[in-house]
Amino acid sequence: MSKLLIVGTVAFDEIETPFGKTGKILGGAGTFIGLSASHFRVDAAIVSVVGDDLPEEYLELLEDRGIDISGIEVVHGGKTFYWKGRYHNDLNSRDTLVTELNTLADFQPKVPDAYKDSAILMLGNLHPMVQLSVLEQMTSRPKLTILDTMNFWMDNSMEDLMKVIAKVDVITINDEEARQLSGEYSLVKAAQKIHSMGPKYVVIKKGEHGALLFNDDNIFFAPALPLEEVFDPTGAGDTFAGGFAGYLAKHEDISFESMKNAIIYGSNLASFCVEKFGTQRMESLTRGEVETRLQQFKNLTQFEIELT
Amino acid sequence: MSKLLIVGTVAFDEIETPFGKTGKILGGAGTFIGLSASHFRVDAAIVSVVGDDLPEEYLELLEDRGIDISGIEVVHGGKTFYWKGRYHNDLNSRDTLVTELNTLADFQPKVPDAYKDSAILMLGNLHPMVQLSVLEQMTSRPKLTILDTMNFWMDNSMEDLMKVIAKVDVITINDEEARQLSGEYSLVKAAQKIHSMGPKYVVIKKGEHGALLFNDDNIFFAPALPLEEVFDPTGAGDTFAGGFAGYLAKHEDISFESMKNAIIYGSNLASFCVEKFGTQRMESLTRGEVETRLQQFKNLTQFEIELT
Repeated sequence: MSKLLIVGTVAFDEIETPFGKTGKILGGAGTFIGLSASHFRVDAAIVSVVGDDLPEEYLELLEDRGIDISGIEVVHGGKTFYWKGRYHNDLNSRDTLVTELNTLADFQPKVPDAYKDSAILMLGNLHPMVQLSVLEQMTSRPKLTILDTMNFWMDNSMEDLMKVIAKVDVITINDEEARQLSGEYSLVKAAQKIHSMGPKYVVIKKGEHGALLFNDDNIFFAPALPLEEVFDPTGAGDTFAGGFAGYLAKHEDISFESMKNAIIYGSNLASFCVEKFGTQRMESLTRGEVETRLQQFKNLTQFEIELT
Repeated sequence: MSKLLIVGTVAFDEIETPFGKTGKILGGAGTFIGLSASHFRVDAAIVSVVGDDLPEEYLELLEDRGIDISGIEVVHGGKTFYWKGRYHNDLNSRDTLVTELNTLADFQPKVPDAYKDSAILMLGNLHPMVQLSVLEQMTSRPKLTILDTMNFWMDNSMEDLMKVIAKVDVITINDEEARQLSGEYSLVKAAQKIHSMGPKYVVIKKGEHGALLFNDDNIFFAPALPLEEVFDPTGAGDTFAGGFAGYLAKHEDISFESMKNAIIYGSNLASFCVEKFGTQRMESLTRGEVETRLQQFKNLTQFEIELT
């Protein structure tokens, strides 16, 4: 079992969907990645920053899942990052209603000494310079560094983003972001261009249409599980990334074959995340439920054809 | 090997894409279904209507692939159905520039006697009353009847369409059409509603995002092969359906397990169709190429996970 270091937001989310509204609840990329990775009972730590307005029970919730929170700085008198969004009827698009960076604006990540030699480093979506700072604090080069990012940084901090991209092994982005980053419409060509920017592995997330893993000429596809209801998509991408990173940390095998399994687990865990508001479903998730759903993924994709 | 009867248009297409324009070339649902099914060397016939303006070489091309064309009526002095369309830059949407029904307007399908007992009946996209007429000419109920249709008939002939849907075993439609037909956004719920209209099997085509096969609680997913270039999507859905029908006719097995393989072959054949204009790629396609690509489909989707 490898150590897994996660950097990402621990935040307040407030969500409106056609099914209802939440008040301020626990959210953030670091939170979803951590909860998802904790399914694999790995030795994981989160590096983040919050204000002292964040209920202590939220941090305890992470700690109870075996996540080291010594790298989550609590700024006294500070306020926690807050995002409010409203999903459209099909749940495939959303409007951001409020973004308050608060303590995140001056976030100087501090990696706990015990995790500076982590084998797996998961850089959750944040300013590229924050991601870079974490990477530079590592005392030894991680066996695998995974970067999640988004179009906002492509629009606003492209130069910094390219510096991080050049240093990571895996990048996870969605299909539109892959097209924006590469200037290519075909995802096959987009992945080729992104390979040339640094990452040997490119994971393209397509939401309800699944995810593609590229490594040069090798391509693997994990479908999303077709669901009767999607209740709240918030955190699905981070849960996917957390499952991916958690699986690889647990199995200490970063081969392409192992990454195939890792994205199946990522899809598996993400399929639960969307079933309830916020982190609710991930909090109650059991190992048995994940294994049952793994069988559903097998039924969904596995076939036996003899050549004609 | 079962007999396969196909009803569908044999037509002139004229296509504009960002990569170029064609003049009037061979097209039509019946043509693409037939060419695709002929990969399996099954005993297949097409029922259709054309004018005598259709070059004889087009019918010979079908005949050379072993397709019985005695059910393709040639109307002397008549003109062949003609469709002209222009694809947008991403090739995912298109505008119809011209539709001339011509001889198709009064099409009275006549099923050749030798194919009235076909085990597999493929009703290509046409007016539902034409599809119904073919179904009613069968002397014995086919082992499997497959219906392809589109939103146009939902908008304009819903009552007739529902009569056909009630009588078929399999329906193939795209995701937006499944939502329109069922009034459900979730494809899982959409398939459940469509089951209740008649078809035991529902195939939902998602273009570049693959295809889903539903049979009550069983779901199987065939991805589309990620391609560097899509040159012309015309006929891809029909080629998919033709591969599906052709595989089932060849293997005389209409179990869910067999249908899984059939939609993999459908996706496989469709992935070739889009590589060149019109029927060009399907005409030159070899068995070896299809088998090589089948291996790519396996690499894309097959994984080995042991439970954690």
